Amino acid sequence: MTVTDTVRLATIGAGRIGGNHAGLVARHVPGAALAAVADPVPGAAERLAASLGAPYATTDPAAVLGRDDIDGVLITAPARAHTDLVVAAAAAGKHVFVEKPMAVTLEDADRAIAAARDAGVVLQVGFNRRFAPGFAAARAAVDDGRTGTPQLLRSLTRDPGPFTADPARIPRWTIFLETLIHDFDTLCWLNPGAAPVRVHATADALIRPDAKADGHLDTAVVTIRFDNGAIATAEASFSALYGYDVRAEVFGSGGMVTAGSGRSTDMTYYGPEGMHADTARRDTDLLRPAYLAELTAFADAIRHQAPPPVTGHDARRALAIALAAIRSVETAAPVDLAEVTA
Amino acid sequence: MTVTDTVRLATIGAGRIGGNHAGLVARHVPGAALAAVADPVPGAAERLAASLGAPYATTDPAAVLGRDDIDGVLITAPARAHTDLVVAAAAAGKHVFVEKPMAVTLEDADRAIAAARDAGVVLQVGFNRRFAPGFAAARAAVDDGRTGTPQLLRSLTRDPGPFTADPARIPRWTIFLETLIHDFDTLCWLNPGAAPVRVHATADALIRPDAKADGHLDTAVVTIRFDNGAIATAEASFSALYGYDVRAEVFGSGGMVTAGSGRSTDMTYYGPEGMHADTARRDTDLLRPAYLAELTAFADAIRHQAPPPVTGHDARRALAIALAAIRSVETAAPVDLAEVTA
Amino acid sequence: MTVTDTVRLATIGAGRIGGNHAGLVARHVPGAALAAVADPVPGAAERLAASLGAPYATTDPAAVLGRDDIDGVLITAPARAHTDLVVAAAAAGKHVFVEKPMAVTLEDADRAIAAARDAGVVLQVGFNRRFAPGFAAARAAVDDGRTGTPQLLRSLTRDPGPFTADPARIPRWTIFLETLIHDFDTLCWLNPGAAPVRVHATADALIRPDAKADGHLDTAVVTIRFDNGAIATAEASFSALYGYDVRAEVFGSGGMVTAGSGRSTDMTYYGPEGMHADTARRDTDLLRPAYLAELTAFADAIRHQAPPPVTGHDARRALAIALAAIRSVETAAPVDLAEVTA
Amino acid sequence: MTVTDTVRLATIGAGRIGGNHAGLVARHVPGAALAAVADPVPGAAERLAASLGAPYATTDPAAVLGRDDIDGVLITAPARAHTDLVVAAAAAGKHVFVEKPMAVTLEDADRAIAAARDAGVVLQVGFNRRFAPGFAAARAAVDDGRTGTPQLLRSLTRDPGPFTADPARIPRWTIFLETLIHDFDTLCWLNPGAAPVRVHATADALIRPDAKADGHLDTAVVTIRFDNGAIATAEASFSALYGYDVRAEVFGSGGMVTAGSGRSTDMTYYGPEGMHADTARRDTDLLRPAYLAELTAFADAIRHQAPPPVTGHDARRALAIALAAIRSVETAAPVDLAEVTA
Repeated sequence: MTVTDTVRLATIGAGRIGGNHAGLVARHVPGAALAAVADPVPGAAERLAASLGAPYATTDPAAVLGRDDIDGVLITAPARAHTDLVVAAAAAGKHVFVEKPMAVTLEDADRAIAAARDAGVVLQVGFNRRFAPGFAAARAAVDDGRTGTPQLLRSLTRDPGPFTADPARIPRWTIFLETLIHDFDTLCWLNPGAAPVRVHATADALIRPDAKADGHLDTAVVTIRFDNGAIATAEASFSALYGYDVRAEVFGSGGMVTAGSGRSTDMTYYGPEGMHADTARRDTDLLRPAYLAELTAFADAIRHQAPPPVTGHDARRALAIALAAIRSVETAAPVDLAEVTA
Repeated sequence: MTVTDTVRLATIGAGRIGGNHAGLVARHVPGAALAAVADPVPGAAERLAASLGAPYATTDPAAVLGRDDIDGVLITAPARAHTDLVVAAAAAGKHVFVEKPMAVTLEDADRAIAAARDAGVVLQVGFNRRFAPGFAAARAAVDDGRTGTPQLLRSLTRDPGPFTADPARIPRWTIFLETLIHDFDTLCWLNPGAAPVRVHATADALIRPDAKADGHLDTAVVTIRFDNGAIATAEASFSALYGYDVRAEVFGSGGMVTAGSGRSTDMTYYGPEGMHADTARRDTDLLRPAYLAELTAFADAIRHQAPPPVTGHDARRALAIALAAIRSVETAAPVDLAEVTA
Repeated sequence: MTVTDTVRLATIGAGRIGGNHAGLVARHVPGAALAAVADPVPGAAERLAASLGAPYATTDPAAVLGRDDIDGVLITAPARAHTDLVVAAAAAGKHVFVEKPMAVTLEDADRAIAAARDAGVVLQVGFNRRFAPGFAAARAAVDDGRTGTPQLLRSLTRDPGPFTADPARIPRWTIFLETLIHDFDTLCWLNPGAAPVRVHATADALIRPDAKADGHLDTAVVTIRFDNGAIATAEASFSALYGYDVRAEVFGSGGMVTAGSGRSTDMTYYGPEGMHADTARRDTDLLRPAYLAELTAFADAIRHQAPPPVTGHDARRALAIALAAIRSVETAAPVDLAEVTA
Repeated sequence: MTVTDTVRLATIGAGRIGGNHAGLVARHVPGAALAAVADPVPGAAERLAASLGAPYATTDPAAVLGRDDIDGVLITAPARAHTDLVVAAAAAGKHVFVEKPMAVTLEDADRAIAAARDAGVVLQVGFNRRFAPGFAAARAAVDDGRTGTPQLLRSLTRDPGPFTADPARIPRWTIFLETLIHDFDTLCWLNPGAAPVRVHATADALIRPDAKADGHLDTAVVTIRFDNGAIATAEASFSALYGYDVRAEVFGSGGMVTAGSGRSTDMTYYGPEGMHADTARRDTDLLRPAYLAELTAFADAIRHQAPPPVTGHDARRALAIALAAIRSVETAAPVDLAEVTA
């Protein structure tokens, strides 16, 4: 394609994030168009497509992959289906943006990476934090040497509460595989050139202790040791009553950089109770610029046949930490990454 | 047009703000397309149109107004041409978004308002602050009663420095007619239902004192009295070395609300010199969400045949304050609005 | 006295601020002791002296001035009595710390200055802002050149609300003579080397409009022009529902510096309503470090026979601005300082 | 003693913290006097006593304990001497304020506690964070239920850099026993009613890797599990180039509270490089209000024969965590508190 051609994208998965991404592609990503929506839930794809003016909707993802008028797909289906969809899309010659986690086993991660490589398609993974302006500026401060060598890092994800989901419908290790995987990537990305070597995790069901017997975990802290000596902490909760909270901190030999404020605007109110500011309630609000930037980067990577800014290898690395954290919880002991990746 | 039709817009004026707006329309405003660019400077329109994929470029604004494939125009030409372009566009049946100031005399303001009314076209004015998220939240706090009745207000605009323009090329009253006019609108908008009644202004050439003899003014403070008793201060400078600074404050019987932070991201760096944060250097960065929102609102107003969120009457009101401020400087005395508008 | 001698101080006036200052002297000012308390209200001096372990209490200020065991006095009586007390104290050879306003006429100001000069005693005035750490750091940024030449300044004082005083008991021009006088001094002090030349003021009874007919004014904005071109704004309200609000801003050719946050601690709470921080409710809380520092400076000036950091001339300068502001309200026109001081 | 008697205190240890505390007692703690200074270094006690006007100085701590004109002692000697000094002071009937760590073995902790109990003297430990206004407000938010049940906590201590000490002169486990012991107490105090049960620690020599072979550790992260499920992280570094950094965070079922800003004043400067604020360089600056408050509380506890706000039991609890953290580093595995305290 030429640099002025429109990149035609389809969304596979019309749920909350699928709808968010479809809306950004249809209306806000420069040079991109929403060409199709697929979702197996009857009516879901049709409704989303109609609301966004997308010309094609189907309950069959394969039907999307078979069309000639689609350059790439956004895989926003449930996590367990991600790898197979990546492989199928690559086999069909479609470029792939896949939401995290790209895979939940290292074998699947390797399979996805190989499929994209063999097909020569772009494979980008949805680690959105990298595209948030504050996080990007934090990484720039690491890159330009202002923080010096990272020594202590922190990344956290707290989903907005109150938590109302049914714990029985949440896969057992979701807090590591779907939530903290963001933080694992963020920590690796903010400590460039270093590799994670050892992991210790603690997790519990503090929000829904009644669900703990069924293996539900909603609160976790993970310590990660890197081969440059840095010690990182990742932290997650499923229920922050004040909203969606995503922050990072890098402390190094030259100084510290922090990112993430939780505030939704720069308005501050002062009243009888004191000072007040609004907080962001949803990831799609707080991280809207990040979502837009990552999808724009995906369209650009397709247009310019360029490497994407987040790769399958990045996803595999974060996954390895998640798997080590899971094993750490199971064994109540630290776990070397080598044990997991061997 | 139906709600799914694309709104086709043309930019008249391919300078800095024209380019900014054209880019937003071409790439980011949902449901809008950049259909044409006009600019009398040879080559300017062609270059901008080519870079954004707009199909038509011309050095003749009238040529744009004569086309059937254009629904509305964005007037981003020099201020002195605004009114005539508004009138011509309205006469051609085009909807109009005009950058501030819509006019520099009240007669011209009335002429523009009448032209749009007679033609039945949308007339929206570029008071961008209203669309900045923090400012909009401030207004919401006024509307929901949290601030109580406004008593003291403040709005300021400081352009990023260092100031390098040639004072001889800046029209004499620009600081009031083009810069503070934003603040005059902001102050009226944050004090809803109240009317300005009296103005006192002080202005000087503090950045370029050598140019004062030629009438150049680069620094100004204006006090505005409203008919609900509120006292407002507007302040402007052409050279803030730290970047583009736009803030507002409303203090009332129930509390205070502030908007505007100057920070460009939520990243903070701590180093040997202390704490550091980046500031926004350009209006098109700091106010990007505002520019996008106001242009989206314009497209929506066209699509839904709805009243625009900022009207010609709003522009006339802010202009009246500017004219009173100018007279206050000339007379070194306070000026009643009635003297100017009579 | 030698540098290790205790400085013995008496408070004349046992009201709210008198009690605050007496407590600081008795307990917190290094090298100082509270030797006596005087207040004409029966029992007031006794109660305060007893609570702080001061050895002497009287209803007669003259009795304090006649004692040999007192080095200096803190005059915290009502404003109208200040000048006569300064003169009497100086005549008795006592060093004097006088709360603002030192005088409410220029003649009285001159009388107080002359009395202290003739007696060779220290005369320090209670402009507390200069001693607040943030304000002092702001001035340091002006002094070290970081702000460049001041061009735009702002200072504000908002007393904590709700306002419950009886307007009939508040002297007519209190907002200028007792409240804004702080800001007038702050603005002069933050623009060192420059002299105020012209004043424009607007004032109203917005909190208690029913009391306006009696001359009550509770809200005011004053614009001050300096001979270096700088334009300053001072702003006051008697009723800030969120607490005591004292801030300053200096914008100059090199940058901007702000001081004052209103927050009472660095604790921030995030809950279902968003982000929250506590605000300071009382001047004696918000400015406690400033009060302690100014009284310590007074004791030091006595001990070292050194010039005080705030002088009678500073008080006279701020008073002149207040008088010009009053005349500006009376005439509804700007007033040259020369008209007032001539 | 009666409530109006002066509490006479002696400092044992005239080093940096000893000098800080002596100065506060001599000049700022209400109702207290510095009666003596002891330090074995020839001349050290004399110099400090002279500078503060204390009447007695000695190189022999026992000489201080033998005096009748001393009510209590501040033990600010090196850590290894703390317990023996506490025991000796208690045996002499002196009230005791001891800097952390009160002891470095649990046996010594028990010995100190027993000695104070048997002698009926006040025993207060120098956990200063509890007295910092922001930290105290954070605890208040926990107490009043705003945070709900704590689930995730964080406390950190970063000493100001650059680190210039000789690692060979720093006892091996100092980062746990002298630095993080603050954080261990803070975390227990911010999770009231809960007991620590399990500890995992990671530590390294990242600032001086050359000293690691000698057992030097300068960077550490500790995870602490509490019996109410809460997971806490403590973090320390010996070299923060931006100054002294002490912060805490409590996240619970009801919200989050944070304390600690690192800023030294509320002044903010905006210049060509962006926004700037000063950071505190020394604990004695950042925590000055806390030091003053804890010493005032000690004097009050003596005067009122009341329990001190920080007890020997609190010190023992924090020590147990430190010992568990040390064992965790030695074994590279998590450690149950019960293993250490059994």
